[in-house]
Amino acid sequence: MTQTQPAEPTSGARGRFITLEGGEGVGKSTNLAFVVDALEARGIEVVQTREPGGTPRAEAIRELLLASSDEPLDSDAELLLVFAARAQHLAQRIRPALERGAWVVSDRFTDATFAYQGGGRGLPFERIVQLERLVQGELTPDLTLLLDMPLDAAERRLAGRLDRTGTRKDRFEQERRDFFERVRLAYLARAEQAPQRMVRIDADASLEEVQRRITRVLDERVAQWT
Amino acid sequence: MTQTQPAEPTSGARGRFITLEGGEGVGKSTNLAFVVDALEARGIEVVQTREPGGTPRAEAIRELLLASSDEPLDSDAELLLVFAARAQHLAQRIRPALERGAWVVSDRFTDATFAYQGGGRGLPFERIVQLERLVQGELTPDLTLLLDMPLDAAERRLAGRLDRTGTRKDRFEQERRDFFERVRLAYLARAEQAPQRMVRIDADASLEEVQRRITRVLDERVAQWT
Repeated sequence: MTQTQPAEPTSGARGRFITLEGGEGVGKSTNLAFVVDALEARGIEVVQTREPGGTPRAEAIRELLLASSDEPLDSDAELLLVFAARAQHLAQRIRPALERGAWVVSDRFTDATFAYQGGGRGLPFERIVQLERLVQGELTPDLTLLLDMPLDAAERRLAGRLDRTGTRKDRFEQERRDFFERVRLAYLARAEQAPQRMVRIDADASLEEVQRRITRVLDERVAQWT
Repeated sequence: MTQTQPAEPTSGARGRFITLEGGEGVGKSTNLAFVVDALEARGIEVVQTREPGGTPRAEAIRELLLASSDEPLDSDAELLLVFAARAQHLAQRIRPALERGAWVVSDRFTDATFAYQGGGRGLPFERIVQLERLVQGELTPDLTLLLDMPLDAAERRLAGRLDRTGTRKDRFEQERRDFFERVRLAYLARAEQAPQRMVRIDADASLEEVQRRITRVLDERVAQWT
């Protein structure tokens, strides 16, 4: 249960919670690995994870979310599955890691719910806010890197990747362009509302340049926190 | 989405929604079939269903709920999975059936959530009420038959059944006696709070006697509604 107060960490301070966000094709995976390496190079214990998922039970919920089926998935059911996976992830992986002082770096978190289920599917933000409170209590990321680029650029990258790997598109990747436009706009709106926590990184640049920008943000925050 | 107003039924009135509730071993399955037969004998179109489940996607969520695993299922995650399955069930099966005038008879619904996750697991009822509103809006059963008997009697029946069928116990059936005591008390409290909707049937009697009582309730309600 999320209201339960965590036990006092036995040594040192609570870890920091960093999330990477962004639509399909913006380079999240590559830059997630980069963030993890950069923190570990500073001697920080890092737990790398992702949403939806991050534990075996939460990954099983992820499969239900991504699976295509003749039966359409109701948008409220989708939203509740996302938060069910999140509750499990928080209880079994994120909170225990933070409490022992490890830093958690997650590929997506609740901003993605506002972007995909709120922006993309058009679910009222108020429903998401309600579930966010119920599941997370006071817990929010300490830093969120939003990798952002225009949809055309992201689509070119994604098309290249799908061609190379021959992967079949999941239920979200099959959505149409206007869905992803709404996802991007919702992400940008979130970043404007929480400018201190959420830093937009222009991802439509060379990888070197993107990672220079990420390093600058990490340097600043790590100095502030340690 | 649950807020969407249903289309006006093309012919006749909205169907009625009847649920059967009760702990393990009280005879729900047998009496569910009896209720369905009794209504069909009156010329009513009946959709028989169950929770969690009732559609392929909702049944997949049910499997996640019942599966035993080394990873404990967080109680908030469990609650959200229950309501995710319910949202799907409502959108894909219950609401469409009621709207076309069919009656729906479900083996369990939200009273079971108050009994199992609220009473059994000890989750605050307020969390359940919040999700009930979010997922169901104004929809509640028109009639709920609560099959009730002392735990000792139910346990004897259940033990006999498990021996006969050799079924392995699921994640709920593995709970201890005090869990089921709390489930029963929560059910009885629900029935006291909604005496018009929820009728307690003493299930610790001969099947003939139990079904005579059920018939009396159905006769009264059908006369009132049709």
